Parts: sequence; C-alpha cells; structure tokens
Amino acid sequence: MKAMLVDKDKNLVWSDVPDPVIKDDEVLVKIYAAALNRADLLQREGKYPSPKGCPEWMGLEISGEIVELGKSVSNWKLGDKVCALLGGGGYAEYVAVKHDMLMPVPRGITMEEASSLPEAYATSYLNLFIEGHLEAGQTAFIPAGASGLASVAIPMAKAFGARVITSVLSDEIAEKIKPLGADVIINSTTQCVEEILKAEEERGTPVSVSMDCLSGETLGKSLPYMAEGGYWVVISTLAGIETTVQLRPLLTKGLHLVGSMLRKRTPEFKAWLLSELVNNVWCKLESGEMKPSVYKVLPIEEAEEAHAILYRGENIGKVVLKIAKE
Amino acid sequence: MKAMLVDKDKNLVWSDVPDPVIKDDEVLVKIYAAALNRADLLQREGKYPSPKGCPEWMGLEISGEIVELGKSVSNWKLGDKVCALLGGGGYAEYVAVKHDMLMPVPRGITMEEASSLPEAYATSYLNLFIEGHLEAGQTAFIPAGASGLASVAIPMAKAFGARVITSVLSDEIAEKIKPLGADVIINSTTQCVEEILKAEEERGTPVSVSMDCLSGETLGKSLPYMAEGGYWVVISTLAGIETTVQLRPLLTKGLHLVGSMLRKRTPEFKAWLLSELVNNVWCKLESGEMKPSVYKVLPIEEAEEAHAILYRGENIGKVVLKIAKE
Repeated sequence: MKAMLVDKDKNLVWSDVPDPVIKDDEVLVKIYAAALNRADLLQREGKYPSPKGCPEWMGLEISGEIVELGKSVSNWKLGDKVCALLGGGGYAEYVAVKHDMLMPVPRGITMEEASSLPEAYATSYLNLFIEGHLEAGQTAFIPAGASGLASVAIPMAKAFGARVITSVLSDEIAEKIKPLGADVIINSTTQCVEEILKAEEERGTPVSVSMDCLSGETLGKSLPYMAEGGYWVVISTLAGIETTVQLRPLLTKGLHLVGSMLRKRTPEFKAWLLSELVNNVWCKLESGEMKPSVYKVLPIEEAEEAHAILYRGENIGKVVLKIAKE
Repeated sequence: MKAMLVDKDKNLVWSDVPDPVIKDDEVLVKIYAAALNRADLLQREGKYPSPKGCPEWMGLEISGEIVELGKSVSNWKLGDKVCALLGGGGYAEYVAVKHDMLMPVPRGITMEEASSLPEAYATSYLNLFIEGHLEAGQTAFIPAGASGLASVAIPMAKAFGARVITSVLSDEIAEKIKPLGADVIINSTTQCVEEILKAEEERGTPVSVSMDCLSGETLGKSLPYMAEGGYWVVISTLAGIETTVQLRPLLTKGLHLVGSMLRKRTPEFKAWLLSELVNNVWCKLESGEMKPSVYKVLPIEEAEEAHAILYRGENIGKVVLKIAKE
C-alpha cells in the first residue's frame, strides 16, 4: 500500500510500504480520510515520534471502512463505517486498528467530517470534563479560539452548559470565530488576558477550567483569578515553556495545574475515553447541537499544501486529507 | 468557661467567655488537651481568622470527654473519650462539636496524644492519599522533616508502603528525626534538594507525591524530576510564595501541581475524611505500627511558652496544652 513518508530533506513522499497485517484483536480499515493535527508538524520535524508499535508515518485520526476483521473481534462487522484514534499511521491507504480504538460514524456526518472527530473530540472531552471537571454553569477559558481544537472545544463546552471565554490574535479573527458561540472573545493583541479574567472573577463568573494550548507567562498571571477548586489544564506550550506561579492563591483557592497529553495515555484509558465520547457526545452531533468543523478538504496529493495551511495558521477548524473515495 | 483570647497587644489571656450552647446535632466536649498548630500562630497575628460559625479563639484539635449530647445525636454517648477536628475554639474548657467531627480515642493512646492526632493525621492522609494518590512502592517527598506534620506524615507514608524522602536544615536534626523512618534525609543547608530528587529519578525511584509545606523556588526546580503522573501538593509556602514551573515536563509527564488546605474543606468532606482515618489509620495506631508524636505537654497556663516553642521551631513533633485532668 501507499503511505506518506518524510524523506531526509523533510519532504512528504507518497511511498510504497508493506501492507499492514492485523492481529486477532484488530481490524483493517481502508482509509477514506485523515485529519491533520499540529502534532503531525512536530512529528514531521522529528520532534514527536510515533509511539512504539505504531506505524512510523503521521496521522492521528482517520475515517474509513472495515475491510478485514481479526479473529477475536466481535463488536464490528465488515463494511462498518468508522472513525478511529491512532497512535500514528493515518496518512496511508490502510491501517490496522485495535477494535476498541474505533467509533461508529455518527448519523448525518460525512466521512471527511468523521475523520476530523476523534483527536479533537477526545482531547476536548478529556481535558474539559475528565481532567478539568467542567460542570454546567461554570466558566471555561479556551485560548487560541481559531485553532482546530478550539473549534471543537468551544461548542462542546457550550453544548454542556458552560460559559466560554476564548482568545484570538485580531478583531478580524474574533469576527470569524463568532459562530463557535463563545460568550467572550478576547483580542489578545490589544487586550490583556489576565485583566479580563480578573474582571470575570469580579463579576462573579471566574474561570473554573482552562484548556490551555498556549501557556507561557499568561498562564501564571491568570491563575490567581480562577474559581475555587479550579483546574488549569496545560495541553501545549505554544506561547512559552515557563510560567511563574503564585502559590498563595493556588493554596487558598485549592487550584490544580495539570499537564495532560492524550497521546501518552494507556490504550485502556483511550478505549474508555472513546466509549465516553460515543455515549455522551455522539448524540449531540446527531442532533445537530454540535457540528464538525472542517476548514478544508484536500486530496492526499496536496498534503504539502495541507501542512502549509497549518504552518501558516490560516485554518479555522480542521484540515482533512482525502485518501480514497467511498 | 475559660478560653484563651488574644488581647490588642497580641498577648494570650485566659479569659471568661460564655459557655457554648450545643445544637441538636452537636455534642459538648469537656476538653482535656489541645494540640498546637502553626496556623495558631498566624491566627494569633490576625492573619488566619476562624471560619464563620466557629469560636474566635485558636485551637484546631482537642481531646476530651462528651458531657452533653444534642437531641439528634445517636452515634455517641455521655462519657465517650474522643478527639475532634475543629474550625477553631480548642484553647478552652469546653467546645461544641458536630457529631461527625469526632473520632474515638484509639486504644492505648493517652488523651494528650489523642489531642495531637486530628489535624496532622487528617492533613497527612488528605494530602498523601486523597490529593496525592500515593500508593505502596511509590516515593513520597515530605520536606521539613522536623515539623509536627512531617512527624506524622513520614511514618504514615512508610506504614502504607511508600519510600520516603525528607529534608531538614542540619545534620544534627537529620540525626534526631531518624526514628521517623525516612529512607533519605536531605540536609538542605549543605545539599541541593533538586539534585537529589534528580538522582532519585535516575536510580528509578522518582517522587510520585510531594506534600510540600515549604514550596518556593525549590518546588519548580524539583517538579521536572517527578514520576509520570505525579502530584505535587502545596500545603504551605514557608519558603516562598512564587515558583517558576517548567511546563514541558508538566505536560509530557502529566504532572499535577495542587493547592490543598484542610481548613477550607466543606463540613461534609471533613466528616468523610475523619471516617476514612478511623477506618484506615486508627488500626495502625492501635497495633503500634504508627506512634503519636508529642514533643512536649505544657499546662494551659504556659500557652505563651508553648507558642514560643513553635516560633523558635525547636519542636520535633507536636506541642500539646493540658487543659483539664481526666
């Protein structure tokens, strides 16, 4: 089969690789679409290798059709349309997936849209509700509102009854992301994030949960204005790898600063997380309460341009590679 | 009755105050002994007032005898020997206590010893096992090994099968606290705490849980050497109220930095915590596996000297005020 390798000059090359051989508890999925993640760029640069046992090529999430079943797999059948969370290996024609890393494609969702669900939905659900313990009526702070992840996390937090604050880099982007439904959109180029979070505390709506891909010094400056018992969940460090934490408010408010990466979780945890998603969130996609957020679909031949969109940071929502026709 | 008030010059004055009147769900306890806590010193200085609904005078833990029962109290009887966790009001002859803030005095433990149990045992159990999720075979870092709290927390962590690292300010103190059973005692005057924690990680015994009353810059310098999924629980900030956190190790190791104060917990939580103590830890006191750690017992008339011992930091273990004879 074909898979997207990275050559020594860091170019993407659609190359011949051995066909995957499934284990007894796996299924073979013919891939229709693979969605991009920022982690793909890091992996391409050699900074974020696939975990052991996964294909070396990029791709954390796909949609497709089951074309072969392992001997012990009883919860799926040939022809099932699925989406899957992968440790790696999504930029390819086929992938072997353990039976409990698959989810059914929600009713009314296209295969391209379905490919964009697993990583962002699992990451958002994990960090908002499991690590962050977000509850209806609380305020969530989800910075980088124009990111693919925020395009899922903001509507998800809203769909579960939270108030949402986000941040973007310009008024123009603020306008663009209005449809996501955030209650407050901070322009962090002209406004001071921590001052706004302080004002939120003063008006009685302090942040209970932050799912933070930016971090940096803004994190430490904002922490003191959180709600009692709040959770600040660091999921990336795009704005800085250090922060100064004020320990008195951490102590007196009983705050939690937590680092959280989906990719490093155990297979058992991931399987449980996906079952939670199907049980609690898929209904909101099927009812139309939440909508997948696909910015652009490009054919696999244009993978280079797809990556360039992420490098330029122009996408609002997810970028998807179309690999095969249904 | 008498209670210890603080006059406008911050002197301790054994004064007449109104007798407590119990509610239906409370009991009246004749106090035999009250144990001191560092929070008492802060309260005396006006920096840590009693929570609403509690007597204004100091005292977070006592032992005594039940001399009156509220109408709806069925789980205790007159004459029961008890110890209690209080929001305040322990430096007195009597105190009204809600029925679920009491614990029986463990068999073989004196009343003076019993008064020293609730705060330190509840704090240690809360932060090591509930906030910190400490498990047998893991390593716990409990700095300030000569503190009253560490004199409980170190043997408790050991009794539950953990490896324990502590720190003290001199070789002399290190020698004195050897009986507590810590596996490693760092002299933080001559040794670098984070270097030792780094070495622990290199030898395969990284710190999974820290119950940290010192905090300050050492906290941030030490975090990167924790075990995957570790919990650093800040319970005080005696060594500094700020720290610089490296967010990459926080993220990649899935670490948790948590602020935790016993005193601010809800009454329901405290009641549950005390029941956990009686169920899981009292047996270890009754078997002799853990021993109460009382440094000195002074009569209530010498409360000033008792406080001076804490101010000077000379005590290894708890200081107890004797208020009445059994």
